[in-house]
Amino acid sequence: MNILVTNDDGVTAPGLLALAQVLRHLGKVTVLAPDRNWSGSGHVKTLDRPLRVKETRLQDGSMAWASDGAPSDCVALALLGFVDEKFDLVVSGINPMPNLGHDVTYSGTVTAAMEAVIWGVPGIAISLGSIENGLLVSDYAPAAHLARMVVEAAIQYGLPAGTLLNVNVPLLPEDQIKGFRVTRQGLRVYRDRLDQRTDPRGRPYYWIGGDTPTGFPEEGTDVGALAEGYTSVTPLHLDLTAYSTIETIRSWKLQKEPKQASLEAFTFNQTLTTS
Amino acid sequence: MNILVTNDDGVTAPGLLALAQVLRHLGKVTVLAPDRNWSGSGHVKTLDRPLRVKETRLQDGSMAWASDGAPSDCVALALLGFVDEKFDLVVSGINPMPNLGHDVTYSGTVTAAMEAVIWGVPGIAISLGSIENGLLVSDYAPAAHLARMVVEAAIQYGLPAGTLLNVNVPLLPEDQIKGFRVTRQGLRVYRDRLDQRTDPRGRPYYWIGGDTPTGFPEEGTDVGALAEGYTSVTPLHLDLTAYSTIETIRSWKLQKEPKQASLEAFTFNQTLTTS
Repeated sequence: MNILVTNDDGVTAPGLLALAQVLRHLGKVTVLAPDRNWSGSGHVKTLDRPLRVKETRLQDGSMAWASDGAPSDCVALALLGFVDEKFDLVVSGINPMPNLGHDVTYSGTVTAAMEAVIWGVPGIAISLGSIENGLLVSDYAPAAHLARMVVEAAIQYGLPAGTLLNVNVPLLPEDQIKGFRVTRQGLRVYRDRLDQRTDPRGRPYYWIGGDTPTGFPEEGTDVGALAEGYTSVTPLHLDLTAYSTIETIRSWKLQKEPKQASLEAFTFNQTLTTS
Repeated sequence: MNILVTNDDGVTAPGLLALAQVLRHLGKVTVLAPDRNWSGSGHVKTLDRPLRVKETRLQDGSMAWASDGAPSDCVALALLGFVDEKFDLVVSGINPMPNLGHDVTYSGTVTAAMEAVIWGVPGIAISLGSIENGLLVSDYAPAAHLARMVVEAAIQYGLPAGTLLNVNVPLLPEDQIKGFRVTRQGLRVYRDRLDQRTDPRGRPYYWIGGDTPTGFPEEGTDVGALAEGYTSVTPLHLDLTAYSTIETIRSWKLQKEPKQASLEAFTFNQTLTTS
């Protein structure tokens, strides 16, 4: 079992180390991660500049690769052949904040797993946190342990094709984590606001900021599971089609008016001819 | 009708100008777009640096704003109050390459429309191109005209809540475009490979590159519609849950082993007590 481990916080992040260490029990682990933080970076495909990759070491002395690309670039690099392995699985994390609801398209952690799925390799994203998001993560051991259980199950049962798992572990002592819930995406409530400031030269600049997001802790959702002390396991895919709206939009009177267009062209030609 | 126009190619792109000009027939247009190209940038929320916004002019002399943020940042800036308007609609484009299938989470054009939907404003992304992607776009007029028709319909009928439209216009003379198809996301075929080169100092660097993507022109999909000469209109939403797999994953034997954990804790405490 060849496992690629990456993250969006950078190769020196403690959550990456905890994940790499625990997954070594399940197979051969290769780490290729960004050389800096890419939180909120989205699903990047870097096409306008080349990427560098350097050899480095994790804090436990194990070998790792660090790239100046985004998390999804790291996955592409590894799967396109930078690493001379055929990977069976990509696991991304452990992110020190939860990735719930609409976070998934922003999240470097989750989009790394998306990239894996696009290349036909199962992807799993692991995040840790509370809905309030304000608590400091100091111990990745519970999340690493629960991540290992999810990864083990994914290896044993096999992830359905085209599916990635978005796993969120509550930030609780392990004996207070109640177990797992297979969930759907819930609803995040962002509380961003624009914070205008003035630089020392009198020019304005703008922070997108504000309070940390909350969410509706609805039954059956990732937000709800985390709020109740369960680890949420949300299967995601990359078909964003809003199927339920297709018929509605088909009922719109969307059609080209070829006659009118021809008439205009005709009139235009006539004018040309007669002038 | 207050319309925000943005793109991912930067404020000087001809596709943006064509879109802004045609949408002025439908309402008051405000342009706030990136100051550089952000193609393939994904759904970005810039939190680690402040953003700048400068006043600029489009080629027709009209006023516009240029930001050093990503397309989705531009939308957030405008909707969070940088522009003192309440926007009814965000339209992004016209991108000079199609955004089909799995392109949607990478695409700056589409993620700008996603950002609008997250803030509760309808979003429409407009792209132009051929499946082969190799043709040069020189005339945005047909795409601008068809974009106007879609935007007009969206205003008239109203976009269902939480839905964005991903519109792809075939790169054909307007009289050869057959009309509209309301579609689902099709399957893109990426042909990226890793191109290793050596810099003048003998160090390796890596381009993610290769042939332009193709796709399966399946009936009912965006790829299929474009291949047949139709403009595809794909309703998207941000719920990526793979509902059809939830029961499968629930059948996995995913459970914590609380007894074992307790036993370990007990044994550990016992050891402490007796040592």
